[in-house]
Order: sequence, then structure tokens, then C-alpha cells
Amino acid sequence: MKIHVFTVDGIPLLKKGNDIASIICERESIEDNDIIVIASTIIAKAEGRVFRLEDIVAGERAIDIAARHDLDPRFVQAVLDRSREVLVEHPILLVETHNGHVCIKAGIDESNVEKGYLIDLPPDPDLSARQIGKRIEAHTGKNISVIITDTNGRAFKNGQTGIAIGVYKIHPVKNWIGKKDLFGNMLAITEEAIADEIAGTANLLMGEGDGGCPVVIIRGLNIRSEGGDIKDIYRSERQDVIKKGLRSLSKV
Amino acid sequence: MKIHVFTVDGIPLLKKGNDIASIICERESIEDNDIIVIASTIIAKAEGRVFRLEDIVAGERAIDIAARHDLDPRFVQAVLDRSREVLVEHPILLVETHNGHVCIKAGIDESNVEKGYLIDLPPDPDLSARQIGKRIEAHTGKNISVIITDTNGRAFKNGQTGIAIGVYKIHPVKNWIGKKDLFGNMLAITEEAIADEIAGTANLLMGEGDGGCPVVIIRGLNIRSEGGDIKDIYRSERQDVIKKGLRSLSKV
Repeated sequence: MKIHVFTVDGIPLLKKGNDIASIICERESIEDNDIIVIASTIIAKAEGRVFRLEDIVAGERAIDIAARHDLDPRFVQAVLDRSREVLVEHPILLVETHNGHVCIKAGIDESNVEKGYLIDLPPDPDLSARQIGKRIEAHTGKNISVIITDTNGRAFKNGQTGIAIGVYKIHPVKNWIGKKDLFGNMLAITEEAIADEIAGTANLLMGEGDGGCPVVIIRGLNIRSEGGDIKDIYRSERQDVIKKGLRSLSKV
Repeated sequence: MKIHVFTVDGIPLLKKGNDIASIICERESIEDNDIIVIASTIIAKAEGRVFRLEDIVAGERAIDIAARHDLDPRFVQAVLDRSREVLVEHPILLVETHNGHVCIKAGIDESNVEKGYLIDLPPDPDLSARQIGKRIEAHTGKNISVIITDTNGRAFKNGQTGIAIGVYKIHPVKNWIGKKDLFGNMLAITEEAIADEIAGTANLLMGEGDGGCPVVIIRGLNIRSEGGDIKDIYRSERQDVIKKGLRSLSKV
């Protein structure tokens, strides 16, 4: 088995209203079963999800948390507005967004945007992925998948990795149930988070900083599916021991 | 930028004493800067790290934990013997191995081994990676990197991903400090866990089960380095909020 992974070069700086699907199709010849991986930053920009601190009024909780972090209270308010739960207030500000994504500071980014502005994550990344995916399919006549990525820290380990926050025509978790191992025993390990592995693959080529490239294509995996919902990758409350641990910490 | 990722096909079932480096070099033409990704399972087999439950005597703590899991106490004893700390006893058995790797059941595997036997992780995966890497370099005259992988679950999310547990001639965490973003601001996010992203990439092609392929080559990334230590990817105690949360949970 062999796959090819390559950047779509020459993507310009994006503004609200730009058509990402057209921008990609003008720069690369798309094939059936390509997985088109797009950094959430450019989605947010094309969707106009850029905002300013001076338009935010911080509440009491935001002021309290901000003081412990040396952060701007209005920034913390923006984080709280995008979160269904704060899992850790300090020394990291770890939240679960309304979409179910657990991340630092709700994924709000001060990098790669004009000074004084902040970028949001897309609020419904599956919808964003679907809109772009359908437009690429209409442009090209090819059947493709889309994954929208963010970068995220991990428990126990240093460094961030690319992870999936939205999908189109790909199941984020592959189920190996019923498969047998080399010796004919049923496999105990049954689920593989392929969307996150693909996002990490793409992130190796996206890079950070001014040499960054926000669109990467994976060719040769051939795992396009009907359906696919990013919520399948978020652990249910019942199964989540780590969340339970963090909540118990906040009560100490 | 473009990279190629491909399996090394036709790797036989391995036994103690097999020379993985030769087996790879006989099957694939290696180039400078190739990253050779190897599943820990075959390393453990070639190193003879296969053991039997009947050779283990379970202690009191193992018997206690085993009862809550419906596990064999001797299996739990094997997990405890390989762990410097048990972070969660139940409903998952999450430990930190002597090598610093946080994982379920110390990574002991019942899959892909003869019935009645278990496979260990290599106790010093950097050493295993270095030994294989040096032999491949001696065979081929090329300068390469090696990453040894396991599959691991994650906090907050379903599914496992490939992760790095040992490295040769690659820094597991890439530092972006001093880089500027598209608008000339210094980047706030500064570390990328490239070894885990590469392990995840390889895992997409390795698969699980009887169609699995334990060796994958990544060509085109060109990130070989002098030095490289897997311990750089493990978070220091001081920075680890999640561990603190899990410990506080165990006291509740």
C-alpha cells in the first residue's frame, strides 16, 4: 500500500466570503477518493469569524479567571462564551466547546490574523466541511472527503498534533470489530481514530508560521464513506474517566 | 511539498533472534532521510519479549485490582511489574510505565501472539530503535531515522491512534520558537509532536488484524536530526494537570 500526501501551494491570505472550494480546485487537480485536509484557520477567515476584544464586555467569572492567568478578561469572556464547560481553570484554561471539542482556550487563536483581532473555530465544523466538500465535488465531478483540522495538546505528553474537528464523507473512527489477528484471535483493540491520524499526517506538511500551508491532500487511502459525524470521536460522559478526574480536582 | 508513505510488504511472522534490519533491507530499497516506522509488536517478538501467565505469581494488590476488572490477577501483576505508577485502577487500568509512557495495561498485548502467551513493549524503545537504525545504516550506507510505535487511547476522545514510543535520529518534538506567523507576530504555539504525527501516519497503513503490516516508510519529510530522545515527549510532573486530576480522583 502506498499513499501520497502533498500541499496545495499558493493559497492566498483569505478574507470573508472567499470560496475555499474554488481556490483549491484552481490550484490542484482533484481525483476520486482524495481526502482534502483544511486548517480551521482559513475556514474561520472565509466565514468571517474574526472578532475584536474591544467589542466584548467581561463578566465576573471571566475577570476572576483572567487575573489568575495574566490574560485579558475580555479574551477569557470570549472563551467562556464558546464553552459548555470549563474543565480546568488554572494553570491551563481547558474547556469543552459547545461542539464537544475539548481544547485550550476554546481554540481561539491570536496567530495568523491582523493585530488586535482574534480568530474563532468554525462553530459547526461538519457543516463547514460539508459545504466545501459539496462545492469541490460540483466543481470537479469527483467524489472526495474533507477533514477540517485544528492543533491540540494532549494529556501526559508534550507538543501539539493536528486533530480533526470536522468531517465530510469520512467516518472519524474506524471500527475493527470482528477482525481477527494474525493468529485468528478476535482483536481486543477495535477502534482507530483515523480522522485524527489523517489530521496529524496533514499537519506534518502544513507547518506553522509564515511558511505554513493550510491545505493538504491525502491520495490513496480510499476510505471515503457515506455519512460521518465528528461527534463520533468525542467520548461519552459515561466513559470519560479523565474528565471525572479533572472535575474532582476543581473541587479540591 | 510532497511525501510518500508506503508499507514494506512480505514481513514474515517473527521469532526471537530475527534481525529486523536485514528483513527490511531485503524487501525495500532504502534512501537517505527515510523514516522507518516499526510496530513495537515485532520488536518485542524479535527481542523475545513474549511471556506466559503461568510463570507469574500475583500479589495482593494485583488480586484486588483484577477482581474489579474481571481480569486474571497474574495479568494485572504483569502490568504492575512494568509500571512506576498506577494512575487509574478502575474502570480503566491506566499506568505509567518505567519508561514514562502512560498507557492502558502497560501496553501488554494478547493480540498477534500464540494463544496463552502475552507480548511486552520493548523496555527501552530508544535503544531498540537505535540498534535497528544503526544496522539498517550499516547495511545500506544511507542515513535514516527510526520510530517505534504503539497504539494508544486518548483523553476525551474515542479510538486509538499510532504514537511513538522510541526514536532514532529524530527529535520527537519540533520546536517552532522564534518563528513568526503570516503577519509577523511571534507564534504562541511552539511545539509540534512530530513523532506522534508520523506514528499516526504510519498506523493508517499498518492496519490491525491479519491484514496488518508492521513496517511503513515515510519518504520526503527530511527531518533527520542528530540526537533525539523519546523522553522529550513525556510531560514533566510539574506541568501535568491531568495526572494531578487523576491522582485526586483516586483519593476520593
